[in-house]
Amino acid sequence: MDVISPPADAHDQEEGTRFRPKFDANGLITAVAVDAGDGTILMIAHMNAEAIHATLATGIVHYWSRSRKTLWKKGETSGQLQTVQRILTDCDQDALVIEVTVGADGGACHTGRRSCFYRELKVGGTLTLV
Amino acid sequence: MDVISPPADAHDQEEGTRFRPKFDANGLITAVAVDAGDGTILMIAHMNAEAIHATLATGIVHYWSRSRKTLWKKGETSGQLQTVQRILTDCDQDALVIEVTVGADGGACHTGRRSCFYRELKVGGTLTLV
Repeated sequence: MDVISPPADAHDQEEGTRFRPKFDANGLITAVAVDAGDGTILMIAHMNAEAIHATLATGIVHYWSRSRKTLWKKGETSGQLQTVQRILTDCDQDALVIEVTVGADGGACHTGRRSCFYRELKVGGTLTLV
Repeated sequence: MDVISPPADAHDQEEGTRFRPKFDANGLITAVAVDAGDGTILMIAHMNAEAIHATLATGIVHYWSRSRKTLWKKGETSGQLQTVQRILTDCDQDALVIEVTVGADGGACHTGRRSCFYRELKVGGTLTLV
């Protein structure tokens, strides 16, 4: 469990070479899953330290389910497992972009769509399918 | 201030045509800014209802600064204003992907880099520049 280093000062957070995730009050950081093939943003979810460790240890993306309050191996039942190709973190280390290849039909959304981002928000508050 | 509709049931949240953002306990949703030209993920930040309204009303992306606890017109001082090209929301409407064109040098990160995601996380917890 030592792949996550303690917090540091802002310079080390931004320029250092150790992973020092900045968890929120609930112990979470934001994770964006992106299709490694074409860059499509598939979904946004959250990770706690346990999910990060499981993801790094297995190469399969694990999230923290906020609704079920449990470790969530994405695709465990659907087969839409997300295999890590590359993980990027941002300047203050409170978010991850994870480039993945996806099992089964390549989708990520529980509605059956490939990406969770299937609606466009228009001025006025209307949503249209994209 | 009526572009945001009240919460609804899960089906309406996923398939409806009204914007019903699912704010967290702090009144925030996650927003990912993507360069509309090449799809590069530039940054991840947060929005409250006020930031969403300001963004829709002006076509310029506004976030909520969690550290400063204030509305944050990104690029107001740097010139790196983010002009909205398209806003997508996800199945449960707790996240936005915002495709933008960026003013000034086209960058987003306060470290001077174009994208905040300039480091790769390796197994073992090491960060390397990408």
